[in-house]
Amino acid sequence: METREQLYEGKAKTLYATDDPRLLVQHFKDDATAFNAQKRGTIHDKGVVNNRMSEYLFRYLEEHGIHTHFVERTDDRRMVVQRLTMLPIEVIVRNRIAGSLAKRLGVAEGTAAKQRIIEFSLKSDELGDPLLTDDHILALGLVEAAELAQVKEVTGRIADLLTAFFAERGLELIDFKIELGHDADGRLTLGDEICPDTMRLWDMATGEKKDKDRFRHDLGDVEETYQEVLARVLAD
Amino acid sequence: METREQLYEGKAKTLYATDDPRLLVQHFKDDATAFNAQKRGTIHDKGVVNNRMSEYLFRYLEEHGIHTHFVERTDDRRMVVQRLTMLPIEVIVRNRIAGSLAKRLGVAEGTAAKQRIIEFSLKSDELGDPLLTDDHILALGLVEAAELAQVKEVTGRIADLLTAFFAERGLELIDFKIELGHDADGRLTLGDEICPDTMRLWDMATGEKKDKDRFRHDLGDVEETYQEVLARVLAD
Repeated sequence: METREQLYEGKAKTLYATDDPRLLVQHFKDDATAFNAQKRGTIHDKGVVNNRMSEYLFRYLEEHGIHTHFVERTDDRRMVVQRLTMLPIEVIVRNRIAGSLAKRLGVAEGTAAKQRIIEFSLKSDELGDPLLTDDHILALGLVEAAELAQVKEVTGRIADLLTAFFAERGLELIDFKIELGHDADGRLTLGDEICPDTMRLWDMATGEKKDKDRFRHDLGDVEETYQEVLARVLAD
Repeated sequence: METREQLYEGKAKTLYATDDPRLLVQHFKDDATAFNAQKRGTIHDKGVVNNRMSEYLFRYLEEHGIHTHFVERTDDRRMVVQRLTMLPIEVIVRNRIAGSLAKRLGVAEGTAAKQRIIEFSLKSDELGDPLLTDDHILALGLVEAAELAQVKEVTGRIADLLTAFFAERGLELIDFKIELGHDADGRLTLGDEICPDTMRLWDMATGEKKDKDRFRHDLGDVEETYQEVLARVLAD
């Protein structure tokens, strides 16, 4: 598909308009950032891995009744997606408490959660994506109450599906981030990407981190890990 | 009442044991801190104001069906209170968005909230009292779900009562912090203090800040403001 003007350039992806106003092209880059872009680097072929892995997971979720923006993958680094009107919040799901939340709450990395956490943050690079409670979202009118309930319901189904998917491949899904929006028909739809950049995956046998934490914390084997996770995802 | 050993020394208060294991003495100091104790100072007779104002407001809330830890005021700076087993969370109520939350979310000081915000934070000076969502509280097992609902219900009633109380005295209650615990019979009970240290009050006629923000932001007339608010509270 022919691309037209660049609409958005993010840390890891670029979005282009197309001749069809309902469709966009999403281009996956190798650039990596961490800690609110204080750390920057490149992970060789990360864009290729994330494009293929996102394709596979969007198809899997679609097969299980989740609306996603995925249309087709056109080459190694690009996929065609539906144009969504994004919600102004990010959604984070946590099966265990890890990363910045563990540090902020003073608990050990990987502390078990007595129940799954669905967490929201304001989409704002400038403000560092601040954490929002439900009351903050409603008080600011960012999302209406009925839709917030729907976001939680869909997110719960996605979390169940992805947690089971990775468990079958020997990986524990610790946490992940998703972004949702509305398609042209107003349907709540999963957008963005689903890949080792946006989730924590721990090897169930060895406990090893199989995600972007290898880059964040200089754990080595970064590129190899992205390739390994893709291979596990694709190996049906 | 005779005091025995000091149990706790906080930023603005000291707690002492008494000969009765069910009762404590709460002593109000003039020391003031702000911005997680990065700013320190003294506000002359603040302890006297906060003791008398807390007494008055605890009595008012008791008359309206709220259980509080207040027993009696014994002198200018001391009150006898019930010993509570405190919840590990602080409760913040916001009628408008001000202070650290306004800064964090990038909205103007005093932004109107489309609905009242009830917010929780982990009681931890060391961690800077981090914000908690309901899911965080339940996932960490800090408070059980049924009790969290009860905390919100009681907090909502306290907020209605205090908002109306100050409105009758020409002061808009912008936000306030409370702490809750269980008394010896297991009843959910309001503890701590209720005073210009723990709330924001804006003059409804002039918009002037009538609370600890005068100290935080060096607005002047700090002591006079504490005395004025006490006088308004006591003037039935």
